[in-house]
Amino acid sequence: MTRKCQFLKRWGVKALCTAVATLGISASAFADGDQSYRWSLVTSWPKNFPGLGIAPENFASMVDDMSGGRLKIRVFGAGEVVPGFEVFDAVSNGTAQMGHSGSYYWKGKIPAAQFFAAIPFGMTAAETDGWLRYGGGMELWEELYQPHGVIPLAAGSTGTQMGGWFNKEINSVEDLQGLKMRIPGLGGEVLKRAGGVPVSLPGGEIFTALQTGAIDAVEWVGPYNDRAFGLNTAAKYYYYPGWHEPGSMFEFIVNEEAFQELPQDLQAIVRQAARTASYDMLVEYNARNIEALKQLQDSGVELRRFPEDLLQQLQVYSDEVVQELAEEDPMAARIYESYRAYQQGAAAYNQVAEQAYIETREQ
Amino acid sequence: MTRKCQFLKRWGVKALCTAVATLGISASAFADGDQSYRWSLVTSWPKNFPGLGIAPENFASMVDDMSGGRLKIRVFGAGEVVPGFEVFDAVSNGTAQMGHSGSYYWKGKIPAAQFFAAIPFGMTAAETDGWLRYGGGMELWEELYQPHGVIPLAAGSTGTQMGGWFNKEINSVEDLQGLKMRIPGLGGEVLKRAGGVPVSLPGGEIFTALQTGAIDAVEWVGPYNDRAFGLNTAAKYYYYPGWHEPGSMFEFIVNEEAFQELPQDLQAIVRQAARTASYDMLVEYNARNIEALKQLQDSGVELRRFPEDLLQQLQVYSDEVVQELAEEDPMAARIYESYRAYQQGAAAYNQVAEQAYIETREQ
Repeated sequence: MTRKCQFLKRWGVKALCTAVATLGISASAFADGDQSYRWSLVTSWPKNFPGLGIAPENFASMVDDMSGGRLKIRVFGAGEVVPGFEVFDAVSNGTAQMGHSGSYYWKGKIPAAQFFAAIPFGMTAAETDGWLRYGGGMELWEELYQPHGVIPLAAGSTGTQMGGWFNKEINSVEDLQGLKMRIPGLGGEVLKRAGGVPVSLPGGEIFTALQTGAIDAVEWVGPYNDRAFGLNTAAKYYYYPGWHEPGSMFEFIVNEEAFQELPQDLQAIVRQAARTASYDMLVEYNARNIEALKQLQDSGVELRRFPEDLLQQLQVYSDEVVQELAEEDPMAARIYESYRAYQQGAAAYNQVAEQAYIETREQ
Repeated sequence: MTRKCQFLKRWGVKALCTAVATLGISASAFADGDQSYRWSLVTSWPKNFPGLGIAPENFASMVDDMSGGRLKIRVFGAGEVVPGFEVFDAVSNGTAQMGHSGSYYWKGKIPAAQFFAAIPFGMTAAETDGWLRYGGGMELWEELYQPHGVIPLAAGSTGTQMGGWFNKEINSVEDLQGLKMRIPGLGGEVLKRAGGVPVSLPGGEIFTALQTGAIDAVEWVGPYNDRAFGLNTAAKYYYYPGWHEPGSMFEFIVNEEAFQELPQDLQAIVRQAARTASYDMLVEYNARNIEALKQLQDSGVELRRFPEDLLQQLQVYSDEVVQELAEEDPMAARIYESYRAYQQGAAAYNQVAEQAYIETREQ
């Protein structure tokens, strides 16, 4: 066994060194004593990436503290054990016991998974949490991943994202014709219907592509993450709101067999730590975005609101795109129905509650 | 020792049976084995009251599960061990190890505590969580309670409340003249400046007072709790938004000596379970309010928005009232400065983020 393998085995990533079939998940309880476990958690982000990479580190630290060290979880960045887009498979086949990612990355395998990540003109972060916990959403998500031996747990939101960085003014739908924009997923599909050219680029290539003019526009996340990438030095106009990702949700995924091997108290610790880490990610984004937005404005960024008629047209295309996703399979249809019903009720309530208050406060 | 005392002692409420001074907090670690603890948690609400009473039960259940039964916390309703308004003293003097309440109840003893409950025209629930965790709010709260031997933990929000139930239309500030309304705390002080007559009534007396015409109006919480009290059968008009409590925050309070006696893993479990219970209370309120609002509307309730000029006038009075609170002592001034700075940044960010999105979605 190589030194690297010993290192990886110590952290439960034994499948890289020996066949999963022979060692299997049952050996994943890496005992320090009778009740100690070592897990590995693979992610789709660079290690310690602001926001996204902090949530799994927070989670692992909470589990360590609450379990008195009986469950130690080591967090790996994208590419350290498996590439970022192979996190689901790694957790499903037991290469790692846990993952932190976004469910839209699995759309090739499980189209309906996209409902648990980012729906254009969909629910906000708080509404999504309500749907998952009290509106039947979590049960549907569990049902969707069950055939893959994977348990999903909500794992944080960025809050409403920004509309993105543009090197020209956007005054109408016509300005989107031929526009090359880094915008993945369902949002990209909506841009395509509006005449634009959606481009998929990993985070690390975004800045250069925008700065060199290889692409005309970029949506990344929001002030906190966008400023970290220096996008304000590569494009002039910063548009809002982020119609394409109003309340993006991320996911912790757990190998079901590994989870079942834990004693009940550690199972409870994993579930509750995930919930705390999930909400804390949203709170962190909200807080860091406040300061980052001020800094961006101080640096001369032009904040602009998308024209209302453009947004209305994008909403029409979004409804089409999401409707088509719902028609892909019966499970997608069930999830769509549940999602849509909750969103309608939540929007109606919000209009007389927080929304009504904020409108008044801002005047 | 009476049978009742034996029962109470078993649950750590020994101070009712024997002098606190002699037994003291150090006996509160009621050992089942070397590492088992039994705590009592006193609250300001009826046992299992929807929303408010559910949060401490959730908390106790999570702690039990995560600690494998090593820390058992029994929840008592208001009046079972101490009256609802004596929760802080009970935790401070060790009668109980924990409490669940609202910090505005302690304004006679600690005026600045009100900043951690409900500020008219103040922050929303999400903004408050950001301030507490990333804006220095939690450190100020800890400093405020430290002289009393009490550790505060955020413990849930109702979200933006409703404006209340009125037996007549409210079309201008003049309609508030002489209006007898159940509205406690700073909101009541604001109503007084607008010419109204704030009345304090415990929850159990609200319905009858409104139905018999002893008072003209009531604010209680929101659709979920208001419907449980049947307020829709006692008044015709249901106004919004709840300017007086835009993001009410509640509190878990912990006796510091009792907390220090816990091993570190149980301390971590108490802290994280509180955070999860806190967010879950907000999610539960949001979710239950959606359904309750539909039911109220189906029953014929007239939903009305307060006139904008009335709200603007109330905001002027609110600013005065909060400013005067800030002048009560140097600690209140420090908290006010921190609160106000965070709110300004949060409101500016919200305008280009979630708020901008919701305005578009609703059209």
